[in-house]
Amino acid sequence: MKHIDHVGIAVENLEEAISTYERLLGTPCYKRETVQQQQVETAFFKTGDNAKVELLGATDPNSVIAKFVGKQGEGMHHIAFEVDDIEAELDRLREEGFTLLSEKPAEGADNKRVAFVHPKDNHGVLIELCESMD
Amino acid sequence: MKHIDHVGIAVENLEEAISTYERLLGTPCYKRETVQQQQVETAFFKTGDNAKVELLGATDPNSVIAKFVGKQGEGMHHIAFEVDDIEAELDRLREEGFTLLSEKPAEGADNKRVAFVHPKDNHGVLIELCESMD
Repeated sequence: MKHIDHVGIAVENLEEAISTYERLLGTPCYKRETVQQQQVETAFFKTGDNAKVELLGATDPNSVIAKFVGKQGEGMHHIAFEVDDIEAELDRLREEGFTLLSEKPAEGADNKRVAFVHPKDNHGVLIELCESMD
Repeated sequence: MKHIDHVGIAVENLEEAISTYERLLGTPCYKRETVQQQQVETAFFKTGDNAKVELLGATDPNSVIAKFVGKQGEGMHHIAFEVDDIEAELDRLREEGFTLLSEKPAEGADNKRVAFVHPKDNHGVLIELCESMD
């Protein structure tokens, strides 16, 4: 894995959270994007050259983000790592015995192909792999 | 704030977690350090030029990490941002209305001065500011 691409934070009200994080980080939200497949709206903040903060708000009560917030409240949701070749990395992790949440990458926000590793194998941390399509 | 310095992950058994994250990230733990004041042992992994992964294991049942894991299980504990001038940044955040967990910076791991912003103001995310003393 190359580097942390972003940290995803699940929030209840995206507008309020954007306002908070603009004040906290001292930088404006530079991109918002809805990912229909995951029923989520995202908002990104640049923090340095690589690693971003991604706020995640549900667009539907059945969204995984709505369920996450309903169960354990707002907070950190996942860490995403940029990889060069997502299929190769998924193969490597599968061989290492990690449980993948999807066998194949899906289309994610920020023009990336993404896949997730189950938190049960990572001491409670949901790990996202992402490969840029830019 | 300059960039994400690290993401802190609270774990129950540091040895097991180091083994897991070495396999997950494909890179060895490059530093271990005990922070007596916080009753915690830390283990660091390089992921790219800036942002690291920090595993946190309690060295005492009264450690904040032991309490965190006991209450909500293992998982993401905080996001740390590197800053140039931690006192100036604490002043800025205080004026913005954020609740600081300490008025003054303390000595943290990795040769840094650190301070924390309460998660209640940040949609459930514990934020660490850190200034390098290198």
